[in-house]
This record gives sequence, C-alpha cells and structure tokens, in this order.
Amino acid sequence: MSAITTEPTPALAVQPLPAVMPAPAPGGKPRVVIVGAGFAGLSCAKALARADAEVTLIDRRNYHLFQPLLYQVATAALSPADIAWPIRGILSSQRNTGVLLGSVTGVDTAGKAVLMGEKRVPYDYLVLATGVRHSYFGRDDWEPHAPGLKRIEDATEIRRRILIAFERAEAASDMETRRQHLTFVVVGGGPTGVEMAGAIAELARHALTCDFRKIDPTVARIILIEAGPRLLATFPESLSKVARWSLERLGVQVLTGVRVERVDASGVGFGSDQIGSRTVIWAAGVEASPVADWLGQEGDRAKRLMVGTGLTAPGHEDVFVVGDAAVAAGKSKGPVPGIAPAAKQMGVYAAQVILRRLAGKKPPKAFRYRHYGDLATIGRKSAVVNFDFWRLSGFPAWVLWSVAHIYFLIGFKNRIVVALNWIWNYITFQRGARLITGPMD
Amino acid sequence: MSAITTEPTPALAVQPLPAVMPAPAPGGKPRVVIVGAGFAGLSCAKALARADAEVTLIDRRNYHLFQPLLYQVATAALSPADIAWPIRGILSSQRNTGVLLGSVTGVDTAGKAVLMGEKRVPYDYLVLATGVRHSYFGRDDWEPHAPGLKRIEDATEIRRRILIAFERAEAASDMETRRQHLTFVVVGGGPTGVEMAGAIAELARHALTCDFRKIDPTVARIILIEAGPRLLATFPESLSKVARWSLERLGVQVLTGVRVERVDASGVGFGSDQIGSRTVIWAAGVEASPVADWLGQEGDRAKRLMVGTGLTAPGHEDVFVVGDAAVAAGKSKGPVPGIAPAAKQMGVYAAQVILRRLAGKKPPKAFRYRHYGDLATIGRKSAVVNFDFWRLSGFPAWVLWSVAHIYFLIGFKNRIVVALNWIWNYITFQRGARLITGPMD
Repeated sequence: MSAITTEPTPALAVQPLPAVMPAPAPGGKPRVVIVGAGFAGLSCAKALARADAEVTLIDRRNYHLFQPLLYQVATAALSPADIAWPIRGILSSQRNTGVLLGSVTGVDTAGKAVLMGEKRVPYDYLVLATGVRHSYFGRDDWEPHAPGLKRIEDATEIRRRILIAFERAEAASDMETRRQHLTFVVVGGGPTGVEMAGAIAELARHALTCDFRKIDPTVARIILIEAGPRLLATFPESLSKVARWSLERLGVQVLTGVRVERVDASGVGFGSDQIGSRTVIWAAGVEASPVADWLGQEGDRAKRLMVGTGLTAPGHEDVFVVGDAAVAAGKSKGPVPGIAPAAKQMGVYAAQVILRRLAGKKPPKAFRYRHYGDLATIGRKSAVVNFDFWRLSGFPAWVLWSVAHIYFLIGFKNRIVVALNWIWNYITFQRGARLITGPMD
Repeated sequence: MSAITTEPTPALAVQPLPAVMPAPAPGGKPRVVIVGAGFAGLSCAKALARADAEVTLIDRRNYHLFQPLLYQVATAALSPADIAWPIRGILSSQRNTGVLLGSVTGVDTAGKAVLMGEKRVPYDYLVLATGVRHSYFGRDDWEPHAPGLKRIEDATEIRRRILIAFERAEAASDMETRRQHLTFVVVGGGPTGVEMAGAIAELARHALTCDFRKIDPTVARIILIEAGPRLLATFPESLSKVARWSLERLGVQVLTGVRVERVDASGVGFGSDQIGSRTVIWAAGVEASPVADWLGQEGDRAKRLMVGTGLTAPGHEDVFVVGDAAVAAGKSKGPVPGIAPAAKQMGVYAAQVILRRLAGKKPPKAFRYRHYGDLATIGRKSAVVNFDFWRLSGFPAWVLWSVAHIYFLIGFKNRIVVALNWIWNYITFQRGARLITGPMD
C-alpha cells in the first residue's frame, strides 16, 4: 500500500513547454526525479542519499503517510499527525535531495521531463511511484455514498460520517431512521475492510457505550461484504477463518460471495436484497494512478503498468515504475503484492540500479521480491499474522502487529505518541480523536 | 474566550412549530437547556451534575475546544485532537444531562423553546453561552484573504496557508513572488495576535531552517499590526513593552497605531502604505453570536447582550446569557473580560442560580467576577503574566503559562500528550503537525 494517490488526468498532448525549473543541476550532475513520496518513492529517495546526483522528490502532499494505520484515523483512535510526517523534515539532512510540492500532469519521455501543468522538470532518471487510489469498477457515481480510504481527507471524512451517524440516530424520532443510521456497511474483505469493520465494531461496542441517552450504540449493525468466497484472500484459508470468527465475535456480520450491485444514499443492494444504511465505506478495490497513460502504454485491468525484471517501463530504460502502480513478477506465487514492504523493496531496488549506472557499473541482478509475511488486525486484541513458515492469530498476533507497526513508523516522537495512544485506548476503551470536523450538514 | 461560535442567523419570525423533541421530561422534571459547549456552557452543565432536572447541552460541534491553544494547531505544534474532547465523553457519567448536536436558529421566549430549524427544544431555564466569532467590522469581504482563528477548521486552514506559503516561495522563480510568499501579516495585537506572530516566527526561524533548498525560511518577514497604541491593551503597560521587545527579538516587526484599511489577495494596506503578503491572519476583533437577535434585543457594538447582575437577559428571568456573548458588569475596572476563566465563572454562577431556584431558595448574591490574572506567551520560551499583585515575564512566566495551560486541559491523556509535545518541540525545535490538508490548489 503506497501512500500517494494521484487523481487520474487525461493523457496530455506531449508538446515541448518552456523549461522554467529546476535550473540545470549545478556542475551538470545527473538529475533523478521521483514522483510520489509513499513507501516506494521515499525509500528510493533515501537510498539515493549519497548519490552524486541532484534528486528531486515530487508529491502532491507535503507529508509521507503511513497508510496501513489510516483506518485508525478513520475510527478516531489516532490523529492524522500521528501517522504523517512532512517529507521535507524526513529528508532535511539529505542535501542532494529537493522536495517539490505539486501535481504531476504527464511525462514527456522524448524530452525527458516531468510535466506539472506549465512547468517542466527535466530528468536523467525518472522513478514513478504514484501508487493507487480506490476504484469503483466504473461506478464512480457510488463514490459520494461510499468513500474509500486512501488519503487523510478520506479518513477524516469517514470519521465524520461514522460519528455523525450516531448523533443522527440519537436525534432521530422514529425507529426506522435510527436503524439506518446505526447500520454500517464495509464493502471489501481485504485487510483494510477487515480492519475497518473491526474498528467500527469496537467503537460502537466499547468507546461510545455510555455517551448517548436515547440510543444504545452497542446495537449498531456492522456488515462486512466480500465478493469472493472468503475474507483476506491473500492469506492462508485457516487465517481467513480466524479473521471471520474474530469479527463475528465482535458482532460484525460477515457476508462472503456477495457482489454489491447498488450503492446510493439509502444503502447497498445486491440481487433482490437491500441493506438500509447511511454509512457505507468502500474498501473493495484500487486502480493505479495514470502512470500507464503518461507513458503512452497499456495498463492492466487495474491500470497498473507491467514492468520488467529491472522495474523499468517497457522501452524506457531510464523510467522506473515502482510500488503499487507497477506489476512486477514475483516468485512462483504470482505478481508482487501491493503492500508496503514490497513497495519499499522496489524503491530501494530502483535506487540501486540508478547508483550502479551512475557509477558506470553493470546493472544488478533482476529484482526479486522477498515476502516477509502478511498481517491484519481485528479489533483491540486480535490479529492474524502469516509468515512463510509459521502462522499466528489472536492476542499474540495482535502484540506482534502492534510492535511491527510502531517499529515501522517514522520518527521517535510518533512511535511514542502512537504507542501511548494504543496503550491508553486499550486500557480505557476510549478513543481520543472523536472529532467531527468539516461541514456540519 | 469561549469555544463555541455560531454563525449569525437572520432573526426568525417566532411562530409555534410542532414540538417533536425532547419529549416532556420523565416525571415532569424541570428542563434546563444550555446552548454552547465552550467554557461557559460546559462549566454550567458540569455544575448542574446533581440537579434534579433534565439538562440538555446543545452545540453545533461534537467537541469542547480549548480555544486558548488553538494558535498552536494553526502553527503546527499540536493536533486538533490534543485540544478538543467529545462533549459526550466529558459528560458521559452525568446521567441527568443529554447532548444534542445541531445548530440553534432562534429562541421562542414566549413559548419557552429553543428553535433548531423545524425542531423545538422546550426549556424551563435557558442558558445561552454561544460565544463570539471573529469580526471584520463590516468588511466581510476581507475574510477570504485574512482568516480568523476561532474554530478547528480555521486553525487547519491557517496552518495550510502558512505551510503552503513556504512551499510556494521555494517553487517561485522570481524574487518578488518569493518575498510576498515569505511575508506573514497578523492583524490585531491582543493575546491571540501576539501568540500567533511569535509562533510563526519560531516556525520560520527554527523548525523549518533545514528543510528547503532554494529559500532560507529565516528571512521570512512576520509583521504584527495593532490599531491601538500598544500590544496587549488589557495588560499593564510594562508587560506590553516586554511583549513587544520579546517579539522583536524573535524578528517580528511590530506596528502599533496602524489601522488596516485594505485587505485583498495581494496583502494589506493603510494610508499610502502597502505590505505585499500572501498570508494575512485576522486577530483584530470579535462579535457575539446572534443572541441579542434571538431575544429581540439590542446588543452592543460587538453584538453582545448587556446582562444584569443575575446574568439574565433583560426582561427574561429564565434566560441566562453567559460567557463572551454577554456584557456583565465587572469590578471597578469595567466589564468582565472575554477570557476563559470569566466564562467559566459565569457558567457556574448561572448553574447556582438555577439550582437555588429549583430548590425554592432565594437567589444568590449578585455575580461578582474574580480576576486571577492575564497570561500571554511569546514564542518558545517567553511569556508575560499579570496577576493583581505581581507581574512576571520571560522564561519563568513561560513555565507558569505552560503549567497553567496543561492544568486546565481536560483529560489525563491530553495533558500527557500536550506536555510531551511541548517538551519535544522545545528540545528539538521541531513541529510535529506540519500537515497541509484540504484543497491543494
């Protein structure tokens, strides 16, 4: 899961534009431009710390987002600043690297420049790490009714909807309205969907129990809908079962083999069934940012670009595509998965290739993805963990999950703050960040 | 400074509407309705914890905001959740009190009900604690160019503008544009303006120094403009001087006796002078939410309602107006100031009057405001403190300011988190919450 999402942009007619920035590198150093400061782009930039090159990292946002914990912002356990760090701060001591805030609109591969509207950023090596955004499989009209979870704004919007739903239920004068407001539907049974459903259930069952006078938050229905035959399809089947059982114990209703066909303001529908719900959350699919379009190539069904073993785009030896926006061949088990460790490995690999080329050395061996394991957490004290040689579930898995996530957070202070928050939430059942911000309609 | 701000609403034609909620109190208990969960409203609600009454606290927001630290959110030192708590959480164990989320649109004093659009909330006692919002003295067209600081959304918007300004300066190709982006103007030399200007100076001089490659953030101009003859007009003159000197030492340019006459996208102007700035912050004045309108009465110049010594609205013995929305006679020194401790005292006093009336006792003595002192902080290690009998400035005052603010925060966890953040920021010169969220135009 890479953090950066770029809105799809119509493919640009690639025409030379006046070069305004950056000025040619002092001393004519080779220019490496990285687009996207998610796990892939940031790890690539860091791996180039000692490169004798001028590195530019471009992102639409000024922060790197620790996307795996975004669902905890959406469910009021953490604050946005706990899981996001200013990119400039991370790279401030890396003097060969500049950060550019802005949206990339295309790539001029012939002129070797990244396009940002009128601006051209010339490159010698280009690393595209623009990640994915959520996809509605052609039903973009569903988006207003079922927001996805990729950006901080998505998380605070989902938090707003969840908290407002309880408020509306409390203020409602009839049972039917109350019931619709207290029904939460999560579409998609991958790690994000499982973690969201578990966290909403915890919120309703524990954090809010004493706070209302007319409703009982514990009667809230939380429904997780997955089109495939089981949750967590990339995990072993035994762990899917554990995940389902853990969710059901939290009071989540799990529907598998159900493909949602209708989403609107009144809820979701499939076949002749209809679930009345005012809060639907989309965790069902992603599509890549328009990297393939930028390069004038054909992406796969999820718009991702198939890259070679050197992680370069077909026909462009100087353009790397890394992270979730790329499809790279993995080991025997199919393509490299769209998870943070994979994105980091790809970013570091691209940096290594660039370093060797800068040094005039021959390219390294083909990229080989190393899979360390899969983790997903369910509620406040359960998780499933799958490593190659052992599996773990329940409380020990939850402890491992917590330690791993704290470890991978950037910055000492964030680790402390997140750890304190989790300990606090664990002991008190409270959620600290229960703020409804934004429009109050 | 009370936390709740209510948008002004046209005075409603008061006509009976169908009463839908709340249903008459069980057992016919007297109903106390409090509008606004700022310092005044919340302290009133808490003081009614044991009242044999049905208490309803209405707010447009689901959280109580510790407004005195809002400028630290605007300058990326704290996160919104660090200084805001869900109202329901604060009152969850207070079983006689319900919380209602929504906007009040008027008061039907004849029918004894608060109006929320179509909804009527009947009361036996009403406490209006709706606070103030920033005011542009009739120049509302200035607002888009010079946001004020009253709500969390204001703070994240100002944070966005400040951080974006440095990004724009870094990306600018000409010196003039860069200069405009690196010029920050704060209008208004009260505590909020002084604290904002100091915090922006710290941000530019310390937190951002290593983060840019083309600009030097320490050259940023921070200009504080006050119309009156000195900063912190409510403080003794000696402390105003200390405040000015402390700000100037941080590199803030202080202009007193200057009344801003023009504010637009290019900056601020007065007389034949013009300051080119892309970031202007408004801390120059407030006006009350439309309490006076709701009661069909005449407010003062800032739309506040003059209340009697019992803090009730003229002609309405059952309607209390407390906090910043009221003008109450203080001691010899003029009216009660618009600060948090005053708001709390007024809220508690109103609760005491109600408790005595409920018990059939005669009303307590007239409200008498007790002034404990004034505090304002300037940057990371200076402050001015004024108590009746002693004054303090510099580092000891800053320590006192910090301890006092931690002490008055609600909730053990928030105290710990804010204290840790301050210690961290103090040691590292960093700001943890440097996130640009919202539209990226």
